[in-house]
Amino acid sequence: MQRYFVKQPLKIQAELQLSKEDSHHLIRVMRTDIGQDVEVVDLDGKVFIAEVLKSGSIATLRTKEDITKSVELPVDITIACGISKGDKNEQIIKRGTEMGAKHFIFFESRYSVARWSEPKVEKKLKRLREIAKGAAEQSHRQLIPTVVFIKAPALFETTIEHRMVAYEESAKQDEHANFKSLLLQLKAGDQLLAVFGPEGGFAEEEIQEFTEHQFVLAGLGPRILRAETAPMYLLSAVSYQFELK
Amino acid sequence: MQRYFVKQPLKIQAELQLSKEDSHHLIRVMRTDIGQDVEVVDLDGKVFIAEVLKSGSIATLRTKEDITKSVELPVDITIACGISKGDKNEQIIKRGTEMGAKHFIFFESRYSVARWSEPKVEKKLKRLREIAKGAAEQSHRQLIPTVVFIKAPALFETTIEHRMVAYEESAKQDEHANFKSLLLQLKAGDQLLAVFGPEGGFAEEEIQEFTEHQFVLAGLGPRILRAETAPMYLLSAVSYQFELK
Repeated sequence: MQRYFVKQPLKIQAELQLSKEDSHHLIRVMRTDIGQDVEVVDLDGKVFIAEVLKSGSIATLRTKEDITKSVELPVDITIACGISKGDKNEQIIKRGTEMGAKHFIFFESRYSVARWSEPKVEKKLKRLREIAKGAAEQSHRQLIPTVVFIKAPALFETTIEHRMVAYEESAKQDEHANFKSLLLQLKAGDQLLAVFGPEGGFAEEEIQEFTEHQFVLAGLGPRILRAETAPMYLLSAVSYQFELK
Repeated sequence: MQRYFVKQPLKIQAELQLSKEDSHHLIRVMRTDIGQDVEVVDLDGKVFIAEVLKSGSIATLRTKEDITKSVELPVDITIACGISKGDKNEQIIKRGTEMGAKHFIFFESRYSVARWSEPKVEKKLKRLREIAKGAAEQSHRQLIPTVVFIKAPALFETTIEHRMVAYEESAKQDEHANFKSLLLQLKAGDQLLAVFGPEGGFAEEEIQEFTEHQFVLAGLGPRILRAETAPMYLLSAVSYQFELK
């Protein structure tokens, strides 16, 4: 069933209106009729079955049943990526949202082939946020992941205690223990900041700066993963560790 | 360093010739000069540094050093997917090769939106095999995964002992134990056949047939994964379980 996010708390038998864009999607794209049901997620991540009462440019719905069931990862994962070329950033958002990431950070690093000029940043972010929203709806998430852009040094100001850099050189040097031991330290509700390089990887000085700021360097297995694949490995492993029994 | 696969066993100080296509890639695309080094993987998965001796339409190389280091998953994973639309099959091969799959099987199932007509099959397979080769070179695999197309019932004739179907309905019904317990039964050298539905999922009768043929139904976490994402989850989890300590 199609799912829409609304920016207000809801309860049963509450009337609500969808945004103009979502109304258009509901009525024009999905061709939903009055009397049909859709899913609505409220500000707190609660999920309701809601009936369409009025269509038109703004659709009105009424919640009927609370069907909330947690599908969020028990640990909050922030995926921070050096910006990549082409559609790789979009791929990261799309698949990463599907796989349960809570926040995405993009940053420019020394070897980033792609650069986002100041005037372009807002447009890029708008597009990436739309993708996060669409992916969250499709994969039935209870929240829409956030997407921000920062200058690389701002990463060092993080207050997140558990932090790591996915580092290819670690993998090459047969470092296969840091990632798992980091995950085993996490408990439900904890946050993890995981940093991934752009296609060109990190400069040695950057890696040194990360270690000075208590980032753990961790290899993700012996094969070389692309910039857009490594975050998927991490998120899958987190789900496997925490959600499967 | 660029890597090429050859279809013969090699030893140190052996002279060899690349295929016409690989020679073109080495000389024209990568602009490699005589005297420069590349990596060559032989029929047995051994990896050598080799020096370019002659260029031209067929390049001649001489192996200098054996740098074999295993980067293959300790268990052999066969990814069998209902054929999907668009570039999803290609995505599965590309990322799945990066993540260590050994064999890919595509099959038509009841709800496959895409169909491969008989005359198209060879062309499709040729393309997918080229993608597997390119991805294996780029991700520094020691083998090129195989790609085949079969009619769905042929899956039931498999001789692979450990077999599963990634089943969304299992996940919805809070089945979170089967996949991990299957992985924990595997030991190095074992094979696992993991079957994934097309975009439209499997019909109930198909699922019943799978269970009649001793396929375990396993959920891959509580979120809904796309057809092309679910194999990535599985391969990451296998690596996390077997390669990280």
